[in-house]
Amino acid sequence: MPDETLTLRILPNEKWTPVKRETTARDALLKSGIVLHDYCGGEGRCGKCRVQFLEGASEPTTADREFLTPEELSEGYRLACQARLKQDAVIFVPVEHSRPLAGAYVHDVKNDLPPEPEVKKIHLRLSPATIEHQLADFDLLREALKIPSLKPEYEFLKKLPHILRSNGYDATVTLFGDNCLDIEAGDTTYPAGLGVWGACIDIGTTTIGGALHHLDTGRLATRTGRLNPQTVHGADVVSRIMFASLSPANLDEIRQMVLDCINDILSELCKSAGIGLEAILHVTLAGNTTMEHLFLGIPTDGLPVAPYVPVFKDGLIIPAADAGLKIHPRARIYVFPAIGGFVGGDTVADLLVAGLENADKPSLMIDVGTNGEIVLGNRGRLMATSAAAGPAFEGRNIQYGMRAERGAIDRVVIEDGLAIHTIEEVPAAGICGSGLISAVSALSKAGMIDSSGRFITDTVKGMSERFSRTEGGFQFLLAGRNEGASRDIYIHQNDVRQFQLAKGAIAAATVILMKEFGVAAEKLDKIYIAGAFGNFIDPADAIRVGLVPVSDEKRITFIGNAALAGAGEVLLRADMRRRAETLARRVEFLELAGRPDFQDAFARAMIFI
Amino acid sequence: MPDETLTLRILPNEKWTPVKRETTARDALLKSGIVLHDYCGGEGRCGKCRVQFLEGASEPTTADREFLTPEELSEGYRLACQARLKQDAVIFVPVEHSRPLAGAYVHDVKNDLPPEPEVKKIHLRLSPATIEHQLADFDLLREALKIPSLKPEYEFLKKLPHILRSNGYDATVTLFGDNCLDIEAGDTTYPAGLGVWGACIDIGTTTIGGALHHLDTGRLATRTGRLNPQTVHGADVVSRIMFASLSPANLDEIRQMVLDCINDILSELCKSAGIGLEAILHVTLAGNTTMEHLFLGIPTDGLPVAPYVPVFKDGLIIPAADAGLKIHPRARIYVFPAIGGFVGGDTVADLLVAGLENADKPSLMIDVGTNGEIVLGNRGRLMATSAAAGPAFEGRNIQYGMRAERGAIDRVVIEDGLAIHTIEEVPAAGICGSGLISAVSALSKAGMIDSSGRFITDTVKGMSERFSRTEGGFQFLLAGRNEGASRDIYIHQNDVRQFQLAKGAIAAATVILMKEFGVAAEKLDKIYIAGAFGNFIDPADAIRVGLVPVSDEKRITFIGNAALAGAGEVLLRADMRRRAETLARRVEFLELAGRPDFQDAFARAMIFI
Repeated sequence: MPDETLTLRILPNEKWTPVKRETTARDALLKSGIVLHDYCGGEGRCGKCRVQFLEGASEPTTADREFLTPEELSEGYRLACQARLKQDAVIFVPVEHSRPLAGAYVHDVKNDLPPEPEVKKIHLRLSPATIEHQLADFDLLREALKIPSLKPEYEFLKKLPHILRSNGYDATVTLFGDNCLDIEAGDTTYPAGLGVWGACIDIGTTTIGGALHHLDTGRLATRTGRLNPQTVHGADVVSRIMFASLSPANLDEIRQMVLDCINDILSELCKSAGIGLEAILHVTLAGNTTMEHLFLGIPTDGLPVAPYVPVFKDGLIIPAADAGLKIHPRARIYVFPAIGGFVGGDTVADLLVAGLENADKPSLMIDVGTNGEIVLGNRGRLMATSAAAGPAFEGRNIQYGMRAERGAIDRVVIEDGLAIHTIEEVPAAGICGSGLISAVSALSKAGMIDSSGRFITDTVKGMSERFSRTEGGFQFLLAGRNEGASRDIYIHQNDVRQFQLAKGAIAAATVILMKEFGVAAEKLDKIYIAGAFGNFIDPADAIRVGLVPVSDEKRITFIGNAALAGAGEVLLRADMRRRAETLARRVEFLELAGRPDFQDAFARAMIFI
Repeated sequence: MPDETLTLRILPNEKWTPVKRETTARDALLKSGIVLHDYCGGEGRCGKCRVQFLEGASEPTTADREFLTPEELSEGYRLACQARLKQDAVIFVPVEHSRPLAGAYVHDVKNDLPPEPEVKKIHLRLSPATIEHQLADFDLLREALKIPSLKPEYEFLKKLPHILRSNGYDATVTLFGDNCLDIEAGDTTYPAGLGVWGACIDIGTTTIGGALHHLDTGRLATRTGRLNPQTVHGADVVSRIMFASLSPANLDEIRQMVLDCINDILSELCKSAGIGLEAILHVTLAGNTTMEHLFLGIPTDGLPVAPYVPVFKDGLIIPAADAGLKIHPRARIYVFPAIGGFVGGDTVADLLVAGLENADKPSLMIDVGTNGEIVLGNRGRLMATSAAAGPAFEGRNIQYGMRAERGAIDRVVIEDGLAIHTIEEVPAAGICGSGLISAVSALSKAGMIDSSGRFITDTVKGMSERFSRTEGGFQFLLAGRNEGASRDIYIHQNDVRQFQLAKGAIAAATVILMKEFGVAAEKLDKIYIAGAFGNFIDPADAIRVGLVPVSDEKRITFIGNAALAGAGEVLLRADMRRRAETLARRVEFLELAGRPDFQDAFARAMIFI
């Protein structure tokens, strides 16, 4: 009935959308492609999905009253999962829910070598067969290309004869290796035509990033990112695996979410580059093992229980149409090979950027995320492990946490008073992973955190008044509304504990890995740190909080979102795919589960130096 | 409206089918899967589509009166393409339109070697991965099978984990080469389970034959055949190419016809063997180049015009679902490689049976059909050509012609009177290709045909009265209604001319081929004759009419429908596929079009010796 349909206006995006009466604001926003931060799956238990009703706010619920102050309630703030729409409404979605900034987590693909992509277009001016030289159409191509192993793709053959004859045997062939994917009339190679385009995708648990490359020149055309919409089924991989394992329909649903998101990303990339989706002929995808399985709709049931095995670890080449990507149907997608169930294709992509295997001296690569992956090694041997760091470094489970995006505090300095820096230097809206590291480092350096991680509230003059007592312990004011922040932003004692757990897991895993490899920290050549937050960490902070086992800043290199960059490398150079496969096979996986020495190391790594 | 729907009863099949008023009998029968002999595509110009109305005959048309005698008309005979149904009817479809007899044209697959099929099922009892030996599910298989290059099929991966765990890691894997096609719980290998099944298909211009093999044992389970339904768009390949070239919809239509027919054949094979269609994991198909293109929906426009080029000559391996075959979706179909535009995959399949390339001495292989293919050679060199023989050897363009099936005269002897033999020794219904050869040979031997092919009506005592004069020349009564035949069956002077043209084309092509190869007839080791009619030719007749260039009967071997048999060989042995591909590349094609020496040879070959 028409009177049951309401209109929802969404700010700051300026979206208008019809919604059914009694729909929750969370579901209505989700339908409009806006995924809110939440941990509880819409049950009103985490208090993270707050939005501001400028018009049409519903009555506050018990959950609203629990998580929001009376002032916030009167300003129209509500938990989106609790607010059922009963009239036309205008909702303002706060910055912490908005799309991540692409620039904040994409590392540029290295362009030291000229592009040599696996997908190529070749322009041919052929001489038609004659009665004396009676070649089949396909053999005419084979002869011209001088590739005896050239293979005809079935659908390609259907198109071949007309295209050849429609333009006087002047045509452009698209090859993937020795496979003929397509043929077009005339010269469509670059610069006469568009040439060959490809996209790389990093399927993160939290964020999905994508970049579009012009493969003839290697040029990065554009990049973007989205929250992984699977987040509505849980922030971590295990809750998504649980959801997917309940039924084939669930697996299909969670697969479709990531597919839709990647198709959206590809659409946006093409739109912003001014090309059609059919121009994309190659997509490389790197993700952790769970993300890659779910993207392909392959069951993940074996991953969360011992012996923690994935279904496959091979790199897979699949036609785009089979995988469900709406680009050129015969484009190839490449799903990165994995090292193990919890050291996935994203780590392999990281390694393509870090290049550990090219040196004699062992180096360390740490990808800091909800799951931390650590690889140690050199030319001779490579070992990897993973540690459940929890989402603290991604700004989750942190009282005022947010992702590394516009408005996030990413640097904290305590010297002659307190100074903060925010991404894009706008009023502070929350604190991201690098901000958390920086804050803990600053507090520790100033003597305001002891070696056990406890706040000491009275050591620094002028700082004591920034501490306030809450039910769960002290909290420290990083930025106040009266100091220009969009709200009062605290770091809580619990946040420091979350940080200690995350840092401790990674540092302990690093210790065990060094022990198994048989190398001392001082013998390590370089430390590469990858992760969505990585661009902004001060090496001194990483050292001070004990995230890395060295004390020399010069040895630390931040490689940003190396997973996306590594996926881009494979897009640009066919030999990089083979290197990825060799790496995935070569790296030894070290399982930490059930090791008593890991528990010891973990307990020790929780302590600040 | 219900009163517009009539009921048609079809005899002798005892089919009942609803039809719309005003439908022609031809279209109604076509819908019931009965394809009538005709050449004119339903235009009332060839007079071949006669059927007998036992009830409900419509008024005779002008075309009916032209092709049928008043007596036939009164008996209910009508041209099916002219007879529009206006009431419920009972139609008797004469034997010459009925399904070809499978046994008459299928040559048994040779079973000298044990089967070594490309598709295999392997039963595995695996030890699950452990925390110490943490293999991905797929790597567990790879390790157990000891195939490092083992490849995971995407759809296979989706199924893998549940099947493994549902039955305690006791499962059966289906492999095509090193590709994993399927996994089933428990032991499904033979004899614990059904094992592996495959079908071979010969896509002839006129007839499509199929055979079902149990690949574990190599046993031929069953075989069958159908008229190629594309026949409604013309009896020869060129008229079908013309039809297909008019529009993509036409190409699609003519493709769907052969697909439906092959799917029907596969259904029937499985039904009669008591297995499901999903049990078929491999289908090999051999046809002439046009038939293979049309089966795949690949345009054939280039074939009928100089330089007569096909789109592809490669052997193609395609998943069944992509090709449109309704068997196991991940089964593989193999389309035979071709030698040239008019020497197709069926000739390559023939060669697998004839085995010319295994001997030092050159031998000759002739596949007699609408298009005759001739291959000459030995270990060192193989040359092929083709000759447009016309459909006389398939019983077409012959006054009383029919296919080699029940009731066809297949042998004629004139010695102390005339004797005929019919297939299955039932009353004669017409004359087939081998009967035509035999009749011409007998008439020639008796001196009743001169060297130019003219009837001599008065040479043999007691035979003169069998000749009768028609407008177009004399005809000779082979079997009279009063001698037990189902009708008077004549061989007409024109039939002898048709035979001369067909024989002349093949014999002339053979002469040119021998000349180009540089071998004299007496140096030939063996002559293999393949074709749907071949089982029944007397070698002495083949020699007497000059179909073969030798005079020693012992050198002649009939290999029947060698195309189907050769397709079966590939089904049973993976190495045969590689042999087919080597052969297709090795055989040199000799183009006869435009060669003056061919015209000379053709004129000479028309003459009887």
